[in-house]
Amino acid sequence: MTLSAADITRLIREGVPGSADTGFLVERIEGQSVHCRNIYRPSQLRPGGTLSGPTLMGLADAAMYAVILANLGPLEMAVTQNLNINFLRKPAPRDLLAVASPLKIGRRSVALEVRIYSEGDDALVAHVTGSYALPHIA
Amino acid sequence: MTLSAADITRLIREGVPGSADTGFLVERIEGQSVHCRNIYRPSQLRPGGTLSGPTLMGLADAAMYAVILANLGPLEMAVTQNLNINFLRKPAPRDLLAVASPLKIGRRSVALEVRIYSEGDDALVAHVTGSYALPHIA
Amino acid sequence: MTLSAADITRLIREGVPGSADTGFLVERIEGQSVHCRNIYRPSQLRPGGTLSGPTLMGLADAAMYAVILANLGPLEMAVTQNLNINFLRKPAPRDLLAVASPLKIGRRSVALEVRIYSEGDDALVAHVTGSYALPHIA
Amino acid sequence: MTLSAADITRLIREGVPGSADTGFLVERIEGQSVHCRNIYRPSQLRPGGTLSGPTLMGLADAAMYAVILANLGPLEMAVTQNLNINFLRKPAPRDLLAVASPLKIGRRSVALEVRIYSEGDDALVAHVTGSYALPHIA
Repeated sequence: MTLSAADITRLIREGVPGSADTGFLVERIEGQSVHCRNIYRPSQLRPGGTLSGPTLMGLADAAMYAVILANLGPLEMAVTQNLNINFLRKPAPRDLLAVASPLKIGRRSVALEVRIYSEGDDALVAHVTGSYALPHIA
Repeated sequence: MTLSAADITRLIREGVPGSADTGFLVERIEGQSVHCRNIYRPSQLRPGGTLSGPTLMGLADAAMYAVILANLGPLEMAVTQNLNINFLRKPAPRDLLAVASPLKIGRRSVALEVRIYSEGDDALVAHVTGSYALPHIA
Repeated sequence: MTLSAADITRLIREGVPGSADTGFLVERIEGQSVHCRNIYRPSQLRPGGTLSGPTLMGLADAAMYAVILANLGPLEMAVTQNLNINFLRKPAPRDLLAVASPLKIGRRSVALEVRIYSEGDDALVAHVTGSYALPHIA
Repeated sequence: MTLSAADITRLIREGVPGSADTGFLVERIEGQSVHCRNIYRPSQLRPGGTLSGPTLMGLADAAMYAVILANLGPLEMAVTQNLNINFLRKPAPRDLLAVASPLKIGRRSVALEVRIYSEGDDALVAHVTGSYALPHIA
């Protein structure tokens, strides 16, 4: 079963708390990669006028789950095992774009990478790697 | 300048978006460590009835910042450089407790550790390490 | 089957390349934790006269494996999935001590923590977390 | 001052313990990225006939340092702050190739990424991110 970008946006908005709220959406699927967007909202700012760390981490987590759904179909029981984020630049008060790709799709787990940018700027805002455990298939 | 648990709660609630909203609070300071709480709210659930990953990551990020404030005073310009989280158990729909401690307080950066538990349960829910860059002191 | 500190030292020296060579040994097992030692050798120095990063990473990797063996018996097929190390202080040309503990022992994987010290100094030299995948039990 | 691939190989072989020994070399510099090789030696095997974790971590550490040298010149005092490695596939007894790139070159630190492959195979063997602290420039 193949899910479209719109299907995945809907599944994640239904399933991940606050994601409807934060304006998460999947824009397109390219090969095994998924391009996502976080729509900017003033409530995501931290002092100094840049987007907060939890905003970036929430986007990365949702984008990794979008890769699982795009490549493996609607697996509800996949759970994040590990997430490592390097914050590289302070993101301006603007939409964030995330490009998420699998590093390896195994039978028991998936390792992933997410690159986060500010819209209209080529410099990386954050780099994330993580792993998801897959449910056992009987 | 020494900040109390209540001072730090107020500074973080003012400064970190959504933290008032999520019910983050510093309960007490013990030596260099800070004990924090995330007050449970149904909006933090994910499918399956457990607390979401971004809820844990937001708590860890705020708890690390609380350690900086408790040990170094009100440094507004400290920024997270890196955060690594291992998700160990699915947290029940209950308050989360976080114990955050410095691993090293340097002149240029602080390395920290956070242990997250579900209230009333000794088993670790998540383990987090991270680093904060400190502002240059002229 | 319970393995002693000497059993585990022997299994790791046989199995992990360079570990005999580097002078890795398990000193004692305390509850679920394992205390290990890296015997100092001048070949482990880097410019400036401190112990090299790979020396610390090799010690951490062997110490995590020692925890698996101490708690689960001789599982030859356990493999490292992830290792995250924060280098905190430059280690003097002296033996290193590592205290490694499980954060969670699951059916499919084990999450672990390692604290590395220079002998005779209470300040942490490095902090490591990691995970090992366990073989399927048919 | 610009260093060639041969210059960097020599500097690292002189400076990083065991690197001459392990057969580390920089093959070429492309833009900001550096392509490195670990020449296979049977002493790097672990049980099961695959290359050991410390072999991969040592290669990643040296490759990150090679990126610093290629982009910033001969900075002897740069030190690794953090290294995070995801082990994706068991590497065959063969040369390893590492492609290391900066994620961000800042004034105080450099964040880097390393992709490790087995020679002749397009599948990633390991993915590494890390950060180096730069010395203060007076």
